[in-house]
Amino acid sequence: MQTLLNDIYTEVLPMLGQGKVANYIPALACVDPNQFGIAICDNRGEITKIGDADQEFSIQSISKVFSLIIAINNYGPELWNRVGREPSGLPFNSLVQLEYENGIPRNPFINAGALVVSDMNQSRFASPHLGMRDFVRRVSGHEDIFIDREVAESEYAHRSRNAAMAYLMKSFGNFENEVDDVLHNYFSACALRMSCVNMAKATNFLANRGYSLFSNEKVLSQDETSQVNALLATSGLYDEAGSFAFRVGLPGKSGVGGGIIAIVPGRFSICVWSPALNKMGNSLVGVAALESLTNRIGWSVY
Amino acid sequence: MQTLLNDIYTEVLPMLGQGKVANYIPALACVDPNQFGIAICDNRGEITKIGDADQEFSIQSISKVFSLIIAINNYGPELWNRVGREPSGLPFNSLVQLEYENGIPRNPFINAGALVVSDMNQSRFASPHLGMRDFVRRVSGHEDIFIDREVAESEYAHRSRNAAMAYLMKSFGNFENEVDDVLHNYFSACALRMSCVNMAKATNFLANRGYSLFSNEKVLSQDETSQVNALLATSGLYDEAGSFAFRVGLPGKSGVGGGIIAIVPGRFSICVWSPALNKMGNSLVGVAALESLTNRIGWSVY
Amino acid sequence: MQTLLNDIYTEVLPMLGQGKVANYIPALACVDPNQFGIAICDNRGEITKIGDADQEFSIQSISKVFSLIIAINNYGPELWNRVGREPSGLPFNSLVQLEYENGIPRNPFINAGALVVSDMNQSRFASPHLGMRDFVRRVSGHEDIFIDREVAESEYAHRSRNAAMAYLMKSFGNFENEVDDVLHNYFSACALRMSCVNMAKATNFLANRGYSLFSNEKVLSQDETSQVNALLATSGLYDEAGSFAFRVGLPGKSGVGGGIIAIVPGRFSICVWSPALNKMGNSLVGVAALESLTNRIGWSVY
Amino acid sequence: MQTLLNDIYTEVLPMLGQGKVANYIPALACVDPNQFGIAICDNRGEITKIGDADQEFSIQSISKVFSLIIAINNYGPELWNRVGREPSGLPFNSLVQLEYENGIPRNPFINAGALVVSDMNQSRFASPHLGMRDFVRRVSGHEDIFIDREVAESEYAHRSRNAAMAYLMKSFGNFENEVDDVLHNYFSACALRMSCVNMAKATNFLANRGYSLFSNEKVLSQDETSQVNALLATSGLYDEAGSFAFRVGLPGKSGVGGGIIAIVPGRFSICVWSPALNKMGNSLVGVAALESLTNRIGWSVY
Repeated sequence: MQTLLNDIYTEVLPMLGQGKVANYIPALACVDPNQFGIAICDNRGEITKIGDADQEFSIQSISKVFSLIIAINNYGPELWNRVGREPSGLPFNSLVQLEYENGIPRNPFINAGALVVSDMNQSRFASPHLGMRDFVRRVSGHEDIFIDREVAESEYAHRSRNAAMAYLMKSFGNFENEVDDVLHNYFSACALRMSCVNMAKATNFLANRGYSLFSNEKVLSQDETSQVNALLATSGLYDEAGSFAFRVGLPGKSGVGGGIIAIVPGRFSICVWSPALNKMGNSLVGVAALESLTNRIGWSVY
Repeated sequence: MQTLLNDIYTEVLPMLGQGKVANYIPALACVDPNQFGIAICDNRGEITKIGDADQEFSIQSISKVFSLIIAINNYGPELWNRVGREPSGLPFNSLVQLEYENGIPRNPFINAGALVVSDMNQSRFASPHLGMRDFVRRVSGHEDIFIDREVAESEYAHRSRNAAMAYLMKSFGNFENEVDDVLHNYFSACALRMSCVNMAKATNFLANRGYSLFSNEKVLSQDETSQVNALLATSGLYDEAGSFAFRVGLPGKSGVGGGIIAIVPGRFSICVWSPALNKMGNSLVGVAALESLTNRIGWSVY
Repeated sequence: MQTLLNDIYTEVLPMLGQGKVANYIPALACVDPNQFGIAICDNRGEITKIGDADQEFSIQSISKVFSLIIAINNYGPELWNRVGREPSGLPFNSLVQLEYENGIPRNPFINAGALVVSDMNQSRFASPHLGMRDFVRRVSGHEDIFIDREVAESEYAHRSRNAAMAYLMKSFGNFENEVDDVLHNYFSACALRMSCVNMAKATNFLANRGYSLFSNEKVLSQDETSQVNALLATSGLYDEAGSFAFRVGLPGKSGVGGGIIAIVPGRFSICVWSPALNKMGNSLVGVAALESLTNRIGWSVY
Repeated sequence: MQTLLNDIYTEVLPMLGQGKVANYIPALACVDPNQFGIAICDNRGEITKIGDADQEFSIQSISKVFSLIIAINNYGPELWNRVGREPSGLPFNSLVQLEYENGIPRNPFINAGALVVSDMNQSRFASPHLGMRDFVRRVSGHEDIFIDREVAESEYAHRSRNAAMAYLMKSFGNFENEVDDVLHNYFSACALRMSCVNMAKATNFLANRGYSLFSNEKVLSQDETSQVNALLATSGLYDEAGSFAFRVGLPGKSGVGGGIIAIVPGRFSICVWSPALNKMGNSLVGVAALESLTNRIGWSVY
């Protein structure tokens, strides 16, 4: 496995420099684009890693996975009355579909869907972002995971698009709490900083039938685990989900911080990170590394 | 396996009578809705079946899979310049997205995408529908597979929506042949009649790394097989693809004749058939049977 | 003229009871629907009236006309960099077009356009809603025009849809001030209460080449007056603008309070009011009365 | 009046060379862009003209006015069951709105609307394009008006977009005849060649309460005349209708051949022609000339 990662490292290094770091907020724009790390966690908890795999990054939309899991634990199937399970076919921050479909977002991984899930968690917890931080600490076995307040506040200051979505859903009756409160918690969750290593650990239960080795708990049932992976497979990479399935063949979720998780059901959880993004908003080198990885050893679930 | 099918048969029989048979053409509208069959083909070619598994039905959009495979064999990756690989997020026959995205259909399984693929096959073959018929005969090992001319002509007589799509793509320069010629061949391919048993055989190569047991040929490479299955998983069930992944967890493709194929990569090909459709245009009992099947034995790829 | 109004009154009275009063906020929902008034102001300031023409009503979107005129006075043609002059072809509160057209609203009479105009006025005035109230008092010659605080606050409490639009425009850089501040002022302007008589007076300058008889001032130049009337003619009645031009043939502006103004350029200003609305959100009896009026005496500008 | 035209001629001559001649078919692309003519016909039939006012041009979409009038004469208000009277807010050849609004085009001046009107005329006449040619000859008093067969055939060869619209409407049940037949007649009508002088004469009845001086017939009732002018005012210049009302203030209709008609109700009909188009597909110099004309003498209806 280490040899495999070495080979991939050598293969993708020359690609560093392509793509563009997310620049919609200053705190993300200043990240050095020439970083790359990958960590693989097997179902005994063993880590194989290379590059900047211990360097922390802003997890951004990968937090939507944790947010969804917390909502599944608290609401069960009732959750799906307020958010769909279909790919959207439109950019992650589009309001068009939301208006045509009466304020029910297509899935929990586009922004509108994640906002509804955050709204649901807000209805159950006083501080859902701290709840998520604690959840991630627990399932990864790392206490030193923190929210970057500067990033969270910068996101809030640039909240217009997300605020528009939340208010639009509120106008359709699909938003319960104060928009500003939910946005504060939503951006705080996005601003969690994690390394490839602790992210691979934190998501290992998705590769392990819902069981977390690090907290010794059944986070999800086996069926729920398959269902979350199915959603990741069809909707986890925004408007590149189909192409990611075609090229990589694994359930996955990306964030504009440059991180991507990928799950080999029953075997491995993977986290790759490189800050420069392709045109679809996913880590350019990250997607390439995952493609190389699965093609070399036939990990595609298909 | 037979016991499993028996159980599912007992479970879904009471659901017969729900849903509605496709009625946009008379030749489909008169099919008896109270039919149900299922056939599973393992990778040694063994068939397990129950119900009306030997009854022939109109394969309709399942033909899009064969059409795609023929195009892959003839064009390779160049194919993807003319059709995308992303879920559409809109009904299978919508023109809206096609206009916004300059005549490039989202994927080969919505009607617009299948029409482009048919147009490409038309540019290479004098009679692509006969080519497809012969292909299906070969990979299934059944010579007695025929095109239902009455259905094909009835579809052509009701061609307006598909003609609109083809002309719209032509206006964007993404259609080479005469619209009427392509439509004739397209509808003829849709009008193939097959049983669950020979459909399960005909698609077994998708479960067998591209190798057809019945024609003893490598139809697709292993990578191409994974790629086709990935497309089926993200886009095979129209606007219900995400929900199908969530509930069933297998690559699949449905047709308005009530058939659905599903692939368990590396293990089985499945064909289920029941004519009455749910609101999304997929076989109501067929989806339920597949959900029961995979949930009972954990076949979800996720 | 009085005979004419008498005839129309007799004609439309039996229609009272059709349509539905706006019910999205309680303060509007409780208005008695069986009211109807009309007032015509000629260019010497003479009023002809009938029915409940002295009864005050909530002017709602008719305030968009005054808001636009104040912006024209303060910004001149520069205004048109931030809002278009084309009919929208979509409901007055749609966000779809706004997203496709990068946050530039189609015209100043749909909600998004009026919000941008309000944002511009907010940048120039400490309390733009009081400025508008004072403007309306001046050009109508009535000091007793007030803002209904209960209506304004109720609208603010139901602000989600308008907040979504404002934030969406802010995300495109087409909104300068705090969304909440602008919404407060916007709803206050909508909550002005006026009667048909003082509304006909207040808008008479649009029929009189820009000159207000009541404040003895040139409110707009003659060209600007024609331009505002042109915008009213193409976009004043939401998604019924074309039909209103076809049936009535006059520039006009409606509000969900049931008021409609109409301008006979060079001759008369008209205000009709009846609270029950048709499906397009315009006063059902009001439109019928205006149609009867212009058809009887050939006032169509076309 | 002649002095006025002389002044405008001097004013706009320097603008020749701006804009681009329509080039979607070769027969239009080769027209010399440096031509400009204008003709005004008063209600006694007197012509004032300047420049290339006797040069024939391809009337293109101006034919939609004649087609509509023939349908009004044959169907009356029943016509409006199949086509709307609202501005579209989208480009003239868009299919998006048509799909969302179930195949009922927004108005008779966008392509889809004109195709429905042509389909209705096709149901009544064996050769509707010859009927229109004869109608135009009659109301203009010019026998020497002909269809340019080369243009008509070239348009037919490039029919994809219009064919897509017609088939889409057919799929919604809003198209009765064979698509190809209607398209042949539609393109033939568009390919009529007329000069500014005979076009101003042919449309004078719209300025004269429906009465044609040249055929001594009541073509439309006074009310119908106002209604057609109202439609021209709100929808006659595609997606520039609002701006044209704002700048010019007259009902009008443009064609991609560079012609524009404008009506001063009760007084004059105007035809201006210059082949180079602005970005919205309307004659660049033509719009400028009309703007100058109405601003100089206050002909705006508003």
